[in-house]
Amino acid sequence: MKFIIQRDQLIASVQNVMKAISPRTVIPILTGIKVEAKSHGVTLTGSDSDVSIESYIPAEENEKVNVEQIEEGSIVLQAKYFPDIVRKLPEKTVEIESDSDLKVTIRSGKAEFTLNGQDAEEYPQLPKIQTDDSFELPIDLLKSLIKQTVFAVSTMETRPILTGVNINLKENVLKFIATDSHRLASREIPVTNTNIEFNNIVVPGKSLNELNKILVDAEETVEISVTNNQILFKTKHLNFLSRLLDGNYPETSRLIPEQSKTLIQVKTKELLSTIDRASLLAKEERNNVVRLTTQGTGLIEITSNSPEIGNVTEDITVQSIEGEELKISFSSKYMIEALKAIEYDEVSIAFTGAMRPFIIRPVNDDSILQLILPVRTY
Amino acid sequence: MKFIIQRDQLIASVQNVMKAISPRTVIPILTGIKVEAKSHGVTLTGSDSDVSIESYIPAEENEKVNVEQIEEGSIVLQAKYFPDIVRKLPEKTVEIESDSDLKVTIRSGKAEFTLNGQDAEEYPQLPKIQTDDSFELPIDLLKSLIKQTVFAVSTMETRPILTGVNINLKENVLKFIATDSHRLASREIPVTNTNIEFNNIVVPGKSLNELNKILVDAEETVEISVTNNQILFKTKHLNFLSRLLDGNYPETSRLIPEQSKTLIQVKTKELLSTIDRASLLAKEERNNVVRLTTQGTGLIEITSNSPEIGNVTEDITVQSIEGEELKISFSSKYMIEALKAIEYDEVSIAFTGAMRPFIIRPVNDDSILQLILPVRTY
Repeated sequence: MKFIIQRDQLIASVQNVMKAISPRTVIPILTGIKVEAKSHGVTLTGSDSDVSIESYIPAEENEKVNVEQIEEGSIVLQAKYFPDIVRKLPEKTVEIESDSDLKVTIRSGKAEFTLNGQDAEEYPQLPKIQTDDSFELPIDLLKSLIKQTVFAVSTMETRPILTGVNINLKENVLKFIATDSHRLASREIPVTNTNIEFNNIVVPGKSLNELNKILVDAEETVEISVTNNQILFKTKHLNFLSRLLDGNYPETSRLIPEQSKTLIQVKTKELLSTIDRASLLAKEERNNVVRLTTQGTGLIEITSNSPEIGNVTEDITVQSIEGEELKISFSSKYMIEALKAIEYDEVSIAFTGAMRPFIIRPVNDDSILQLILPVRTY
Repeated sequence: MKFIIQRDQLIASVQNVMKAISPRTVIPILTGIKVEAKSHGVTLTGSDSDVSIESYIPAEENEKVNVEQIEEGSIVLQAKYFPDIVRKLPEKTVEIESDSDLKVTIRSGKAEFTLNGQDAEEYPQLPKIQTDDSFELPIDLLKSLIKQTVFAVSTMETRPILTGVNINLKENVLKFIATDSHRLASREIPVTNTNIEFNNIVVPGKSLNELNKILVDAEETVEISVTNNQILFKTKHLNFLSRLLDGNYPETSRLIPEQSKTLIQVKTKELLSTIDRASLLAKEERNNVVRLTTQGTGLIEITSNSPEIGNVTEDITVQSIEGEELKISFSSKYMIEALKAIEYDEVSIAFTGAMRPFIIRPVNDDSILQLILPVRTY
C-alpha cells in the first residue's frame, strides 16, 4: 500500500474515526485505525464493536486532488500514536507506505516515521447494511433531534434500556424519546420522503452523542437505515454504524398528564438564569432542588435553602399565569437541561399539582416536550 | 458592613484571591474569603498560610466610582459559593451587607442571597512586611524571569529545597535559578534602582506560578521586599505574600561546564518542532529520550526508537557546527521546555561530550542559561 495524501484531510478523517476507538477494548486490534487505499480513495475505520465509523477521502473531489500515487492495499495502525504524528508533521502532504513485513513508513518533509502495523485481514469485517430501506434527514435537523433528547437518557446501568434513545418512525412521523425515569424529553418531526416504518428501536445515548460531534452543520443530508440490531447513519464521506440496545422500551405516553391545573408562560432565558443562580446553593448534597412558588400577580418566586450555607430568593415577572396557586420543588439540573434543549424564547409550563409531573413546551409548538417529576420536600 | 460595588471589579478581585485558597486547608477559616470595607475602598484576602493574596478595590479611581454607600466592617465568606454567586448575578452592581449575626445579604437586581458568614476577627492576621528595603521591577520582566526558570523546579518532595526558585540580588544583579538535579534554568538581569542585597532566598515554585497568573502584563511595576521568611510582591492593587523555603540551596555554579567540545547554532523553532515530533514515539515508558547526532556537513539528525512501536528520524540544517562529532541522548521533555523558555529565534548549544551536561543559550545573550544532563542509552 502506498499513497500521498493532503494532511488536513487526513487529520479530519483521523479525528472522526478516533471517536469510535476506545483504548480499553477487549479486542486488541480495535485499538488501531484501519487504513485502506483503493484507486478511487482512502478509507479509515475505527470501531469499539458498539460503534464503527468509516471516513472516506476520495482521491479527487471538486477538481481538487486529495490523494495521489495510490498503490492499493490496507494496514492497521496504532491509534495511540498515528493521530499525533499526523497532526505534528511538518508539510502539507504526507506519504504513507506499507511493506510486506507490515512496517509502515510515514514521510513528510524531512521527517520519517516507521511504525509497526498490523494485518488488516485480522480487522473485523463491518456488517453490510442493506440501504434500500432508508430515509433522509437534513444534518442540522438530526442534530436538533439528538440534542433535544439525548441529555435525558439514564446514566445508570441498572436499567440498560434507559441509557438509549427510543426512536420510532410511524405514519411519516419520526419521534425521539429519552427518559431516566425522573424526567423525559421527546421531539417529533414529519418525514415525507419515505414509506418505511420502524417501531421502538433504542440507540445508545453514547452513540448519538458521538454522532452529534462528528456531523458538521451543513446543508448536507444524512441517510438512515435500520436493521434488527444495527442503525446506519450515512453521509457523503461518513458511515456511522451503531448497535441497537436489546430489550423493550417502556411505554411512556401514559406518563404525560393530559390536562393541567396551573399554566405559566415565561421567557426561557430569564427563567433559566434565575434557576441557575438559585441552584448555586443547592449543590450535590442537596440534590440540586429549588422551589417555585406562584405569587398571584404575574410573578413567580424561585427559592433555595441550605441551612448550613444560606438561602436565595428571586422573583420573575412571567408572561401569564392561569389556574391554581402552586408551590413545587424540582431538580434545578433537570430544569436547566430541559430549558436549554428547548431553544425557543418563550416556554409554557403545565403543572397538575405539586406531586405530579409537569410539562415544559415551547409556546405554540407541540413537537417538543420536556417532562420533569417534582421532588417531595417535606 | 455594607457597600455597593461594581460587579466586574469584584469578580476580578475574587478571582485573584481565589488563587491562594485551597479547599483542603487545615485551618477551616482559610477556606473563606475575607472582605473588609473601609471608607477608601474594599480589600479581599485569600490565604492558604503559604501564600496570601490581598486585592484592593479603591472606592474611587480615575474619576470612576467603584464602591459607594460604604459602611465600614468586615466578614469572611465561604469561597466555595461566593465566587459563583458574584459571577452569575444579573446586574452590573452588587450590594453586600452583613448584620451582627454574621448573616450576609448579597443583592443584585431581583436576586437576593443570604449567606452564613464567619467572624473576620478569627481570620489570621497577615504579617506586615517593612517595605523600606524594597526594589522595583517592571511586571513583564518579572513574568519573564519566572517563566524562564520556574518550570525547572523539582516536583519531588524528596529534596524540598529544589521545589523552589533560588533568588539572589547581589551587586545590582538579580538572578533566578531553578533545578531538579536533571536540568537547570537560570536568568539574570541588572537592577539599578536599589542598593539592597539578599542571598540565596528560595521561593516555592508554586507561589511563583500563581503570581505569574495573577500579574497582568502592563506598564505597571511590582515592588519586591524580602524578610527572613517571607517575600512580598506589591502592585497598586495587589499584595502577594509568600513564605520562603527553609534550607540551603545547593551551589550550582560548578555544574556549568566552562568550555565546550561541540558547538551548534540552530533555529529554535525548527529544533523545537523536530524534537516534539521525535518525542511522539518516546512517551513516558521510554522516559521521553531522543538522540541527537551531528552529521558533519551542517546537518544534525534527531532520532527516537521504540522497538515495539517504531522509530522516527529527521534531519535539521543548522546555522553552524563547530568542534567534535557527537552522539548524545537526552529527555525530549527537558529540551522542549528549555527551548520554549528561551524566547529567541536562534540558540547556541554547547556540548562537552555525550556524558556531560550541555548548555543552551540564546545566540548573543548570556543572561539566560538552560542546562540539561544527558541520558545514558547503552
